[in-house]
Amino acid sequence: MIVVVKNGVPKEKFDGLLQLIEKCNVTVNISIGDTFTVIGLLGDVSSIDKEMLAAQDIVESVERINEPYKRANRKMHPQNTTVKVGDNLIIGSQQFAMIAGPCAVESEKQIVEVAHRVKLAGANLLRGGAYKPRTSPYSFQGLKADGLELLKIASRETGLPIVTEIMSISQLPLFERDVDVIQVGARNMQNFELLKELGNIDKPILLKRGFANNITELLMSAEYILSGGNSKVMLCERGIRTFETFTRNTLDISAVPVLKRLTHLPIIVDPSHATGLPWLVEPLSKAAIAAGADGIMIEVHNDPSNALSDGKQSLTPDQYDQIAKHLHRYTELEKRVF
Amino acid sequence: MIVVVKNGVPKEKFDGLLQLIEKCNVTVNISIGDTFTVIGLLGDVSSIDKEMLAAQDIVESVERINEPYKRANRKMHPQNTTVKVGDNLIIGSQQFAMIAGPCAVESEKQIVEVAHRVKLAGANLLRGGAYKPRTSPYSFQGLKADGLELLKIASRETGLPIVTEIMSISQLPLFERDVDVIQVGARNMQNFELLKELGNIDKPILLKRGFANNITELLMSAEYILSGGNSKVMLCERGIRTFETFTRNTLDISAVPVLKRLTHLPIIVDPSHATGLPWLVEPLSKAAIAAGADGIMIEVHNDPSNALSDGKQSLTPDQYDQIAKHLHRYTELEKRVF
Amino acid sequence: MIVVVKNGVPKEKFDGLLQLIEKCNVTVNISIGDTFTVIGLLGDVSSIDKEMLAAQDIVESVERINEPYKRANRKMHPQNTTVKVGDNLIIGSQQFAMIAGPCAVESEKQIVEVAHRVKLAGANLLRGGAYKPRTSPYSFQGLKADGLELLKIASRETGLPIVTEIMSISQLPLFERDVDVIQVGARNMQNFELLKELGNIDKPILLKRGFANNITELLMSAEYILSGGNSKVMLCERGIRTFETFTRNTLDISAVPVLKRLTHLPIIVDPSHATGLPWLVEPLSKAAIAAGADGIMIEVHNDPSNALSDGKQSLTPDQYDQIAKHLHRYTELEKRVF
Amino acid sequence: MIVVVKNGVPKEKFDGLLQLIEKCNVTVNISIGDTFTVIGLLGDVSSIDKEMLAAQDIVESVERINEPYKRANRKMHPQNTTVKVGDNLIIGSQQFAMIAGPCAVESEKQIVEVAHRVKLAGANLLRGGAYKPRTSPYSFQGLKADGLELLKIASRETGLPIVTEIMSISQLPLFERDVDVIQVGARNMQNFELLKELGNIDKPILLKRGFANNITELLMSAEYILSGGNSKVMLCERGIRTFETFTRNTLDISAVPVLKRLTHLPIIVDPSHATGLPWLVEPLSKAAIAAGADGIMIEVHNDPSNALSDGKQSLTPDQYDQIAKHLHRYTELEKRVF
Repeated sequence: MIVVVKNGVPKEKFDGLLQLIEKCNVTVNISIGDTFTVIGLLGDVSSIDKEMLAAQDIVESVERINEPYKRANRKMHPQNTTVKVGDNLIIGSQQFAMIAGPCAVESEKQIVEVAHRVKLAGANLLRGGAYKPRTSPYSFQGLKADGLELLKIASRETGLPIVTEIMSISQLPLFERDVDVIQVGARNMQNFELLKELGNIDKPILLKRGFANNITELLMSAEYILSGGNSKVMLCERGIRTFETFTRNTLDISAVPVLKRLTHLPIIVDPSHATGLPWLVEPLSKAAIAAGADGIMIEVHNDPSNALSDGKQSLTPDQYDQIAKHLHRYTELEKRVF
Repeated sequence: MIVVVKNGVPKEKFDGLLQLIEKCNVTVNISIGDTFTVIGLLGDVSSIDKEMLAAQDIVESVERINEPYKRANRKMHPQNTTVKVGDNLIIGSQQFAMIAGPCAVESEKQIVEVAHRVKLAGANLLRGGAYKPRTSPYSFQGLKADGLELLKIASRETGLPIVTEIMSISQLPLFERDVDVIQVGARNMQNFELLKELGNIDKPILLKRGFANNITELLMSAEYILSGGNSKVMLCERGIRTFETFTRNTLDISAVPVLKRLTHLPIIVDPSHATGLPWLVEPLSKAAIAAGADGIMIEVHNDPSNALSDGKQSLTPDQYDQIAKHLHRYTELEKRVF
Repeated sequence: MIVVVKNGVPKEKFDGLLQLIEKCNVTVNISIGDTFTVIGLLGDVSSIDKEMLAAQDIVESVERINEPYKRANRKMHPQNTTVKVGDNLIIGSQQFAMIAGPCAVESEKQIVEVAHRVKLAGANLLRGGAYKPRTSPYSFQGLKADGLELLKIASRETGLPIVTEIMSISQLPLFERDVDVIQVGARNMQNFELLKELGNIDKPILLKRGFANNITELLMSAEYILSGGNSKVMLCERGIRTFETFTRNTLDISAVPVLKRLTHLPIIVDPSHATGLPWLVEPLSKAAIAAGADGIMIEVHNDPSNALSDGKQSLTPDQYDQIAKHLHRYTELEKRVF
Repeated sequence: MIVVVKNGVPKEKFDGLLQLIEKCNVTVNISIGDTFTVIGLLGDVSSIDKEMLAAQDIVESVERINEPYKRANRKMHPQNTTVKVGDNLIIGSQQFAMIAGPCAVESEKQIVEVAHRVKLAGANLLRGGAYKPRTSPYSFQGLKADGLELLKIASRETGLPIVTEIMSISQLPLFERDVDVIQVGARNMQNFELLKELGNIDKPILLKRGFANNITELLMSAEYILSGGNSKVMLCERGIRTFETFTRNTLDISAVPVLKRLTHLPIIVDPSHATGLPWLVEPLSKAAIAAGADGIMIEVHNDPSNALSDGKQSLTPDQYDQIAKHLHRYTELEKRVF
């Protein structure tokens, strides 16, 4: 970390700043120039509050040279993290994660049928929302605990492990018992109290990027879980909010290779939520594989026109089957299998 | 709501769409053109899922003509809502809300001193964070329950009511007992489980706009609280995330008159968080008053350089005092007093 | 186009609106509902100003159902447009356009050396800036006409056709004579006077998307050139400006399949400018191919560390060679060759 | 400027970097730490290309401490610049610039009538578009040279000086002769060839901020004009493109006090284009005054419903008159008059 101070400030102010810095347990390296003095901070600066230093009135600027995340940082952990899910899936390995299922669980018939179909097509993890975050209080809010039960039935019948979204700490005991992967949705990416609780359990977490959060913030949210002791964290790029309105959000495809470089955690891409348009799922899935993703999460509904949530962006099982066939050749180029 | 269907679709598909719409308890009005057919939906469409209709494969587009929020809508409630806080403050009335205090409560001395100083300058509501949402797990997380105790001491000593941020449903009993106004932070604006709980209590809520949420989403989040039965909702514009990085966020000043037109709820502006720069607080406070805000929330710290959080953007009590003096002439023009 | 009018407006106002609409040479279809009346406009509405109709005080909303672009619209021209460049390259065909070269032409040695190297690696079109748009007036502004001369030398020596950016109408005669493809940079995407002039010539145009322009605006700018009579237009996605600052811009990969669906014009992707980071060029090039692009444009410099412009994002010829080798397997999957 | 280099790089690479820096005519100050070495560059660094240094492979990061603009910088020119327009208006002084008129000049009757009405209401500068930048080639493109003639008639009849937008260098002789203030529109803010030409003349320029350009880029574009020798530059904030779609753009009100601090040039605010909604003009005009603007530019049309361009956002002369009356009390507080 580098702190720049203008020259000509009173000595006691400068000394006060040095004392403040020294409290942070770092080594200090001062270089005095003609118009400014540069203070280099060496050591573990991840716990130093950049804003606090910037708030000092004699400070011109503060620049972090090292990343503020430690456990999520690839520099600290060069090899890829792999996360075992259920009996047969290891995410982050050569196995490519094919996560599929409906936006919301609606009935036993629906979820079991979709689960069978996506499994046949190659899916290795079943998604389905039981608790649904909806912009409007008047929209369908999910089947809740009943939805979890239906997911478990579908899981038993197909052998697919399940991933579903948690919305509140109070749901945690249920999720810990019943769910294979706990998803943190985009709107809760900075629900820090929830993240802290997830750090205390031993269960894979799929952390979705908030639609207005940058890559560093995503990694800092991962750090909340990791620093609590839970190392089974997977990240998901699902589109960011931009001025472009043709697609619901803008898939930040660059985030995939950027995250692969910055962190050792697996990266999943969700082309369904990123765009909201089913005909974009295939080209963006191919692009995600080519960019280095460890898996993709796709919405599949047995009857999109009558879906209670997000039907517009869902594929039919037939469409999913067709797309999965095409994807094999791309995963093969990346030395991945599903 | 208007649904546009291309002509030439099979009759059974069109009839299926009509049946789907009729289930929604609205009156239907069909007009057939040369290349498309327009279905008008009349009646209460707030509970109809626009996405669900858009998902039908024969549907070209769906346009909502009426707003999706009801209780927050000024059309349903033309007069301004006022919210009584403590014994002496009525927000949304001619009284202008001057909310001030430190980002985080740090010690009894600090919060009591700041409370006395801002009260002298004209503040009528004390802010201070006890539970702090921080991007990094390694940053100061607030004094938590102890912080609430200190806020209560400052409140008793000055007579100022207090507003502070809630981060989790589990904190609600404490907040319901001890706090005058419960603040929902930007990162929790779409924490729907929390919003639902806040709808069940009888306590003023200050709902901050998420930094990537649009105005309709803000009103829909207010609708969560209102539809639960709690009508004491106040909104807060605190800057949105844009490409401009000179300021921490971009204060959306237009949101003030827009919200005054769309809703009857009071609107507060937070220039401190919107910009992160203390020298912008005065001009933006003046602008907020001129644009029609019902109050402003400003960070004031007795010792910004040693603040544990957000010191950079805090004013000193002397600066606050100076600014408050200048603001009187602007509130006067808007027929407001503080 | 659909115009919604609230019921209960004075008859003479409504009739005035109808007369205004009828002047536009469209057929009108009126349907009267309980609370509003819908006027459908049928026929060629591309020349109707949506804003003008929205400005009528009795109008509630105006929705365009058809796209505002005609000649760029795939509906009017279902088959792909191909653009012949030089003797051997047909962009938009099975041939994949590999455009490569330095950000700025700096010397004969530099441009000739780079041209030879990228040709060997598979490039079929040489890029290089002669007139450079720079944010600062104090930055290197390009070799201008001398740069064009050097590009011509490199072209003669390698047989590669050249693409370079035009910055002003006054440069047009020179470009028309010397250049194979005229590039319109992101900052000039809405320089309408320039676009009009480019519509009057018979020369391929590479139109880059403005970093804050949406897809419709890009197609409307193409429409300026096409409606002037020049049908040789190619589009280029080069990243949009968002809140994410890790990459210089955010590559909107979805724009590739979206544009392929909306228009018949060829689509090129520029991963170098989109991200500003050389290590992202390979994964994003692979993603662009997988998403359906007709070509990619990559910055290659013989000595990136000493480049006069944008060296940071340039690849060395060796790196380009390596990447090109890897890309063959991806173009093959898309049935493309280079 | 500060360049950070990781330790342990080969000596010849480090020396090469130093030689590169020394060519830039700056003094160098090196400080060696445990894990990195900091090179401070002292002197005039405005002509140094930050990107070029960042492109060196041994460089970890480059941080500019001083602003890259010189002539626009308030540090170099502490007192406010004032720009004389016509005989009676001095923008940037205590006089508040009230710029008003229609989006597009449509007829002699229209522009003369509007000019008379806005002058009566207090306007001191007449705006009106003769050359119109339109997204669609099929929209009304302005009366062009005839429009300029009509503006001159309106100017003669009312004594109001005129401001109108230039779209191409070829129009410059006409504008230099006939126009009092030449406006550079948002879409041409980075049309650098045009800016260079405007630097060579002696005529006030109103430079509008591009809707996706940050404050530094706006000042760098001003620098293009200033460094050419024309010091009569005024800036205009007119809204930026964000994810919020309720308003056409988002007025960045913070830009006003930020620009007042960074530069000595006058700042105008355009609430009409920023929002596209006429009922927002009054509150945002009040906010602009309170934030410190030197003037506001408002669209006024004698018959908004029949305007050929942007009628939706125009005020009637009666509305303008009403608003101007209200604004007097706000300009008075800021010690301004109109």
